[in-house]
Amino acid sequence: MKRFKALFVMAICGLFLSACGNLGSSNGASTSGNSSNKGTQLTGQAAAGDYQSVIKNGRYVTSKSRGVNVSQNDNQFNLKSFESGLLTVSKKVYSPSKYIFEEGQYLNTSTVQNWLGRKSKSNPDGLNPVNNGKTDPNTRNPIYLQQMEEQDFMKQNGKKLTLSGVTIGLGMNSVDYYEKKNFGSTYQTKISKAEAQREGRQIANQVLARLRQKPALKNVPITIALYRQAPTDSLVGGSFFSYSNNKAGATTVSSWKPISEQNYVYPTTSSKATNGNSGSGNSNDEASFENFKSQIQNYFPNLSGVTAQAHYTNKQLTGMNVNITTQFYSQTEIISFTQYLQQAAQKYLPSNAPIDITVSSTEGVQSFLSRDNGAKKFTSHVFNSY
Amino acid sequence: MKRFKALFVMAICGLFLSACGNLGSSNGASTSGNSSNKGTQLTGQAAAGDYQSVIKNGRYVTSKSRGVNVSQNDNQFNLKSFESGLLTVSKKVYSPSKYIFEEGQYLNTSTVQNWLGRKSKSNPDGLNPVNNGKTDPNTRNPIYLQQMEEQDFMKQNGKKLTLSGVTIGLGMNSVDYYEKKNFGSTYQTKISKAEAQREGRQIANQVLARLRQKPALKNVPITIALYRQAPTDSLVGGSFFSYSNNKAGATTVSSWKPISEQNYVYPTTSSKATNGNSGSGNSNDEASFENFKSQIQNYFPNLSGVTAQAHYTNKQLTGMNVNITTQFYSQTEIISFTQYLQQAAQKYLPSNAPIDITVSSTEGVQSFLSRDNGAKKFTSHVFNSY
Repeated sequence: MKRFKALFVMAICGLFLSACGNLGSSNGASTSGNSSNKGTQLTGQAAAGDYQSVIKNGRYVTSKSRGVNVSQNDNQFNLKSFESGLLTVSKKVYSPSKYIFEEGQYLNTSTVQNWLGRKSKSNPDGLNPVNNGKTDPNTRNPIYLQQMEEQDFMKQNGKKLTLSGVTIGLGMNSVDYYEKKNFGSTYQTKISKAEAQREGRQIANQVLARLRQKPALKNVPITIALYRQAPTDSLVGGSFFSYSNNKAGATTVSSWKPISEQNYVYPTTSSKATNGNSGSGNSNDEASFENFKSQIQNYFPNLSGVTAQAHYTNKQLTGMNVNITTQFYSQTEIISFTQYLQQAAQKYLPSNAPIDITVSSTEGVQSFLSRDNGAKKFTSHVFNSY
Repeated sequence: MKRFKALFVMAICGLFLSACGNLGSSNGASTSGNSSNKGTQLTGQAAAGDYQSVIKNGRYVTSKSRGVNVSQNDNQFNLKSFESGLLTVSKKVYSPSKYIFEEGQYLNTSTVQNWLGRKSKSNPDGLNPVNNGKTDPNTRNPIYLQQMEEQDFMKQNGKKLTLSGVTIGLGMNSVDYYEKKNFGSTYQTKISKAEAQREGRQIANQVLARLRQKPALKNVPITIALYRQAPTDSLVGGSFFSYSNNKAGATTVSSWKPISEQNYVYPTTSSKATNGNSGSGNSNDEASFENFKSQIQNYFPNLSGVTAQAHYTNKQLTGMNVNITTQFYSQTEIISFTQYLQQAAQKYLPSNAPIDITVSSTEGVQSFLSRDNGAKKFTSHVFNSY
């Protein structure tokens, strides 16, 4: 199923990429004469703590390696959590109040694809080890680096934007999935945290040295962050575990700072539910969630799924995404259920952490509730249709 | 595709209905000992202008004819718009500040199914005309009544809830789809507005008389509202066109009030896009939407769909749902696009009407923006994943 989904996503990507070439001509006509679209603009800040981003000639500036990570992730949870997590790291270093975000402009698709490959005669830039020809999970050389992402940060000086910082995320496998022959069974090489850290640091050094060879990146601060990918069957993505800030000009990584972030899935009925972290999060939080779950399952008939992703920073709950799925038979059921959730979530779910609750059916998202960091009450929205 | 979708929904329904029988025993255990679940409670009001609804012994009180309308609608837009529209009619008569909502408790599944059928020897209660044996679209007797819904309204007196009003919605076809032989081609009998109104009023009279035979409904006000179903290929649901308030005890409908509501789909490139209303909504609103659409299509590459449902009450725009779909390659693209939408929506979309904007990809809803009635700014939410 996941394989199928991944293939589907890749097929869609191909579709979109192949359509890309026509963008200029097909959409160009509609902007002629619109003078407000000329030059560089910013998107505006949707919420405090978000970056503004760059618009050039009315268009969003997309990543030069757009789409590579979509095809690198069998588990889409790793894609979103990697990108959001990298933004969180960037915000520690490049404050959204002073810097403007731009998608990575210095690593293009072919560069990233080459770097993510194995080192070989035909691919001397591969950051993953050479294929030693072995197929045993413990003696073969696994793929350590699964995905990478560049984020650029600009400072505004009058009407001019100057590149003033770059963040690079390196997604390191916790499990490398491989086949002994094409279309054969899938085998696994497990990669310990220590091994991932050691290899990640070594790769980071190479990446930093290579980036310094690009004239535009010679003299800007470069932050590199290491992420541990969740296994393919995880219901939550992986997490960042370490980062380093490198001053303008530095060509070797000097020091690493730890990041303490963990993701868990509640209920933890299955060991597969976690992202490879030992333990099962916080037992108080899980008990709160279980209470909430049993209340709402009693309230509304046949809820087919009630799960949560719980995110911890320095062992404290710093976010929770609750997903509720079932079939609904009427719009009034959705409205009433959402009202009830507002009460029940407030009463049973952990306080002091931002929480999102999404209510879905086979027809898609029906309603959602949200409580921001520091807020007391949940706001809710029921999706309507005319 | 729609057929397939409808069949899929029906299959899912079957699955859920068959699981229903076990609900009492499977979930019962988790509530024992929880004294707060005893008796009748209310859900609380999520937003001003919403009804509170009834909880009995910790459980939501579902409709006695739950699920019938799901299987009666090939076009799911008719389902949501019928139920939300009926709530809007109810709110005119039974104010949410004074009345409490309960799903219909007096018309059960078999009753509704019989009433929605054709009158025949085996189904004397059928509200649709007898089959006259003809297959010509103009000489056969079409199915006029496609779906019906009951909504109950209670008044609270101390701890007691008393039924104090009932609303019945009758969904009248604008097109009746039929086959001349099983699994054969689909033919259409078109039903004019005048014909739908005439038949709807006649059916309403029968429904009112029958409801008065139920002891609990003898002496409560009963509101009946007539809805015109959108064609199966419409991208927006139908709308209510008439309603009547009937005092406690009245057994024949005395007078009808008109409802002026229309739904349109923008852009109106195809005549199929409307719900059968003549004309194409308001040209200013459509021009605003077209401006918005061309701005955001220029901003973000390869937006695969930008459409809107526009809802008019007394010829005034009273609501708009904008749906934007595309593939996104990163979470940062979604965040930036949502920020841009916040500016663009405010600048280009019609003011003075509540607007929802949903941004989706093949992976589901990615973000949404909303501006309430009277509000100046759009709020936004980006769906995250850990």
